[in-house]
Amino acid sequence: MTDRNAVEVRDADEPALDPAGAVLAVEACGICGTDARTFFNGDPRAPAPWVLGHEPVGVLEQVGPEAALPPGVELGGRVFLGSILTCGQCRPCLDGRQNLCDHHLLYGYDPFPGAYAERAAVPPIAVKNLIPLPPDLPSELATVVDPFACALNGVEVLDIGLGDTVLILGSGPIGCWQAVMARDRGAGRVFLCDVNRQRLDLALGAVGGFVDDAFLAGDDNGLAGLLERTGGAGAERISVAAPSKQAQQAALEMAAKRARVVYFAGLPKHDPVSPLDMNQLHYKELAILGAYGATHRQYRITMDYLNRRRDELAPVVTHQFPLDKIGEAFDTIRAGTGLKLVVVP
Amino acid sequence: MTDRNAVEVRDADEPALDPAGAVLAVEACGICGTDARTFFNGDPRAPAPWVLGHEPVGVLEQVGPEAALPPGVELGGRVFLGSILTCGQCRPCLDGRQNLCDHHLLYGYDPFPGAYAERAAVPPIAVKNLIPLPPDLPSELATVVDPFACALNGVEVLDIGLGDTVLILGSGPIGCWQAVMARDRGAGRVFLCDVNRQRLDLALGAVGGFVDDAFLAGDDNGLAGLLERTGGAGAERISVAAPSKQAQQAALEMAAKRARVVYFAGLPKHDPVSPLDMNQLHYKELAILGAYGATHRQYRITMDYLNRRRDELAPVVTHQFPLDKIGEAFDTIRAGTGLKLVVVP
Amino acid sequence: MTDRNAVEVRDADEPALDPAGAVLAVEACGICGTDARTFFNGDPRAPAPWVLGHEPVGVLEQVGPEAALPPGVELGGRVFLGSILTCGQCRPCLDGRQNLCDHHLLYGYDPFPGAYAERAAVPPIAVKNLIPLPPDLPSELATVVDPFACALNGVEVLDIGLGDTVLILGSGPIGCWQAVMARDRGAGRVFLCDVNRQRLDLALGAVGGFVDDAFLAGDDNGLAGLLERTGGAGAERISVAAPSKQAQQAALEMAAKRARVVYFAGLPKHDPVSPLDMNQLHYKELAILGAYGATHRQYRITMDYLNRRRDELAPVVTHQFPLDKIGEAFDTIRAGTGLKLVVVP
Amino acid sequence: MTDRNAVEVRDADEPALDPAGAVLAVEACGICGTDARTFFNGDPRAPAPWVLGHEPVGVLEQVGPEAALPPGVELGGRVFLGSILTCGQCRPCLDGRQNLCDHHLLYGYDPFPGAYAERAAVPPIAVKNLIPLPPDLPSELATVVDPFACALNGVEVLDIGLGDTVLILGSGPIGCWQAVMARDRGAGRVFLCDVNRQRLDLALGAVGGFVDDAFLAGDDNGLAGLLERTGGAGAERISVAAPSKQAQQAALEMAAKRARVVYFAGLPKHDPVSPLDMNQLHYKELAILGAYGATHRQYRITMDYLNRRRDELAPVVTHQFPLDKIGEAFDTIRAGTGLKLVVVP
Repeated sequence: MTDRNAVEVRDADEPALDPAGAVLAVEACGICGTDARTFFNGDPRAPAPWVLGHEPVGVLEQVGPEAALPPGVELGGRVFLGSILTCGQCRPCLDGRQNLCDHHLLYGYDPFPGAYAERAAVPPIAVKNLIPLPPDLPSELATVVDPFACALNGVEVLDIGLGDTVLILGSGPIGCWQAVMARDRGAGRVFLCDVNRQRLDLALGAVGGFVDDAFLAGDDNGLAGLLERTGGAGAERISVAAPSKQAQQAALEMAAKRARVVYFAGLPKHDPVSPLDMNQLHYKELAILGAYGATHRQYRITMDYLNRRRDELAPVVTHQFPLDKIGEAFDTIRAGTGLKLVVVP
Repeated sequence: MTDRNAVEVRDADEPALDPAGAVLAVEACGICGTDARTFFNGDPRAPAPWVLGHEPVGVLEQVGPEAALPPGVELGGRVFLGSILTCGQCRPCLDGRQNLCDHHLLYGYDPFPGAYAERAAVPPIAVKNLIPLPPDLPSELATVVDPFACALNGVEVLDIGLGDTVLILGSGPIGCWQAVMARDRGAGRVFLCDVNRQRLDLALGAVGGFVDDAFLAGDDNGLAGLLERTGGAGAERISVAAPSKQAQQAALEMAAKRARVVYFAGLPKHDPVSPLDMNQLHYKELAILGAYGATHRQYRITMDYLNRRRDELAPVVTHQFPLDKIGEAFDTIRAGTGLKLVVVP
Repeated sequence: MTDRNAVEVRDADEPALDPAGAVLAVEACGICGTDARTFFNGDPRAPAPWVLGHEPVGVLEQVGPEAALPPGVELGGRVFLGSILTCGQCRPCLDGRQNLCDHHLLYGYDPFPGAYAERAAVPPIAVKNLIPLPPDLPSELATVVDPFACALNGVEVLDIGLGDTVLILGSGPIGCWQAVMARDRGAGRVFLCDVNRQRLDLALGAVGGFVDDAFLAGDDNGLAGLLERTGGAGAERISVAAPSKQAQQAALEMAAKRARVVYFAGLPKHDPVSPLDMNQLHYKELAILGAYGATHRQYRITMDYLNRRRDELAPVVTHQFPLDKIGEAFDTIRAGTGLKLVVVP
Repeated sequence: MTDRNAVEVRDADEPALDPAGAVLAVEACGICGTDARTFFNGDPRAPAPWVLGHEPVGVLEQVGPEAALPPGVELGGRVFLGSILTCGQCRPCLDGRQNLCDHHLLYGYDPFPGAYAERAAVPPIAVKNLIPLPPDLPSELATVVDPFACALNGVEVLDIGLGDTVLILGSGPIGCWQAVMARDRGAGRVFLCDVNRQRLDLALGAVGGFVDDAFLAGDDNGLAGLLERTGGAGAERISVAAPSKQAQQAALEMAAKRARVVYFAGLPKHDPVSPLDMNQLHYKELAILGAYGATHRQYRITMDYLNRRRDELAPVVTHQFPLDKIGEAFDTIRAGTGLKLVVVP
């Protein structure tokens, strides 16, 4: 990235090896919504020219003599690098809530260049985030560990019971994965809803087998569609997997008594206020729940989960681009014709 | 109540005994915020002239031959009558969630006249709501079982952990009781906050011994006051015990990471939409939780709790009025110089 | 049943219709382990000659004028009758824990004759236990609602997390169903273990597609088999679905740190004491949990679940017998060559 | 300790300062049951001559240049040293379950000499276990942080609800503290029971104000005493805070339906098998739960709790001994005339 909306592939110096760090030969690196926003709008944490890329899978090519590798990670092994860099010593970290670390940083942002590159440095703080890959898991699928672990965090917060009716609002990659996981939690019915027909069709092409029914959200944001499908009762668990106030509002009307509603996505920083009907919350005793990032435990579970479901989940990765076609990748995101995109250097 | 803002004490016919119901000789009956709103603004469910009063304690003077009295309840015994009338057969009722009964009605509203009277009919549907009084619990204190059980429901939803910092926004009777219960759940610190100095002082006079510190909410709705008292960390549990959008909004900023925030009070029906900063929810992984009414289990626990804490809780009942001074009672509510008021026929 | 081990099919009087009850034209009725024990050993609650059968499905042929049918149940409709008869008024019932009703009785035992018959009376106390059948669910599969709901209760107590390693000890019908549900809760791995090769093979024939691996419990009750398959870590969730002290003991050694272990089955009444190593519990912080019966909510969920999974679950019903071959049914149970058996009048 | 049952106070070399460690000027050090067992019976991890003592409070006299002090800890400050030394990198540690660390060691045992001394080395692995003391908390009371945090872990596992009836079996320091915490969790009634009249009286002298009633366990291990006090219903929460099989067995009979029973204490390593009636577990749906050690979070909560309740908890520390009277301390433990004993160098 040389400027907003501008990308160039350059020869770069080999990354230096920190004595307590490592160097990764990148095999694949996912493109996240955050990368796209950074690319389109700029971000002070990515001063151009900057190398983005924070969902890397690769082979550990070099390991510093003082690096404390996690169990199962070794020189020459294939690993994923979790991007949420944590201090390990604050209260949330000690409590196993690394996603809420008081001092967390993000790999791929200043001061840590990312992995849209052939080689990438693993800074010392990121060494504990290396996770070994199961032998049969393809590298390009493994790049999704990071967003998938966040989706899983959302599903854990949702706390689905056997037989629950689950509604997912938003059919991007997060919504797709949560639909799969909702089914795997024993949901009675899984409904998927989006405002965009093209995106919904893409999603159904990838994970339609896990969904009971899908429908387009019209002027009423999908309310009639859901009530009709539930005999007026609403859904017991709802994930709003879209940064949309309309979806957040509608979710409360769509919720059954004592429903849990997870607002998975954050809203834009300059416009975060959502007008919500609090009597829906009160009289139905709803729970509105935030979900942010993922913990070490959730990264671990995710890796196993991806491996177990690798055939069913592979279709969510709709596009792979070589490094020198990375510009096309961002064009594809803009066009909205893909789900998850991966750069393969 | 003969009209809005108008009340008269009249000689009434003795209530008829339903074969499956009972008749109560009323000893005391609380005045609830709902009664006051009905009195000041009218309510279609209370067609004038109407007898209000849905927090009655009395002696079971007559029992119909087909009435199925709950265990421990008997002719001549002193009882409380829970006002949430439930069908006992819908899904929430069968699941022990009587507060969310699909068909619930309210005692004291059409078609069930209330208990600001010397004698009150117990309709058949209300017989299962009779709860026997412990011998040492004064009748006027027992009238608060209904709102206290609702406050307890809110505290259960709050799910306080040992050592948590708890903030109560709103120092009416509900806020007072929740402060006491927060202390009794082992809260590390209990803070009480209100916008009204007079009400806050009243509250501290009644339950100050259970509170670590109290402060007035100024233009920032108490934000600075709380942050100062918690070293910037915020509160781990917050109950918004006031029908205030400002308090609901501020609570999210006052919340520590992973805090639970209960919006106890409903908002006015014509204006229920609260503009809330959803990035507070997202980045701190908050939970916003509704709480409504109370279950049979919670009524039961409440009666024991009141009995155990009767000396400490008695001061929350600040005023008692004989039936012929009930007009003064509503004047006192309007003036805001009392906490809980009780009519003693 | 005319005596222990003796059964005869007789012409019986038509069951009388109670004004608050109903009469069922039986389409199918399951045989439960309890029926078998009663048949082989006798039971004071089944004074010979006695009609057993407490897992009936049928058509509501007559409905008394005062019967309060649950929503969705109507004259002429196909229903299942839940056998745990509850008072609806005790503390556990009011709390939604009907399985622990203080006064519960069992349909099919004195004073309520059962449903190994063409017609069966539905006594008034059982009317609220009628559950409507989905149109596509075969009657013989629906007979398993009762034991399946109990298995589901066990799975809910087990509280499986996404990715957990789950071990089921005992491969009878309960073990089979719990294996299916464990998979449907998102278990990372599901292992099935039994002491009996024939029963294990029967189980794998029916639900092998839901199980990752199965193994025979030898002298060490399966300990080595499990540790080998988990790299020594043990299982995070274990259901002991067999009335075996050896299995209960071994489960504690097989448990990972902080594992939950459900002892699903009761032990024989004359010999209920199990010698258990409490330091396994202490140093690994285990939870040993009982599970008994099922609630109304669980019956409801079960009916949907069976309907959704009817193709995969059908093979667990290995045998159907006409009423006049019921003797053969008990012979088959004794031989251990079947899983779930159903009588079809 | 120079041999089993033999102790001597000797001049010792000053402890060396590790560059990543620290040195503590000991102000007080508690004597734990484990210390007593080690002293009376020997322990391979305490090769004589050995300095015991793993509950130290002191002033940080020296800090190595590479020591990573936790927030709030500084040279010259008063601190407690938590004795459970953890790796910080294994799965339980990363999940915030340091009490179950795969590699945990114990301060005060080989290779880490303890703190019955004027000065004690803080090895690097223990630096993260230093907790700053609130200014008003006396050092001798702060020595109990370690066992108190374990007691608190037990109370958290117990999961007391508002209004529950709680029974504590065993009235040593753990039982006393759990009684206080049970009251502070809002228990409806707190009962304390012991087999030893002297110990029970000692306990009531210290924490009697938090207990509703106490009784001696006779031949029936207290069963009749509890049933009488609960109208036959039993207790909803039971902590077995005594290493006694009889108490473990009796607890199951004393348990109400769906009760939670925590077996707090481990049994002797050579005799850990407890014969338990599993039909009590089954038919009442009990939970038997282990509790072991404490987490960083629980240490933190404990320190605040002790500070808040310092006046009420002080009486549990019944004896203080100067270092040269440490022999008398062990005599007092043997005589059973004290609750918690502290060495003050």
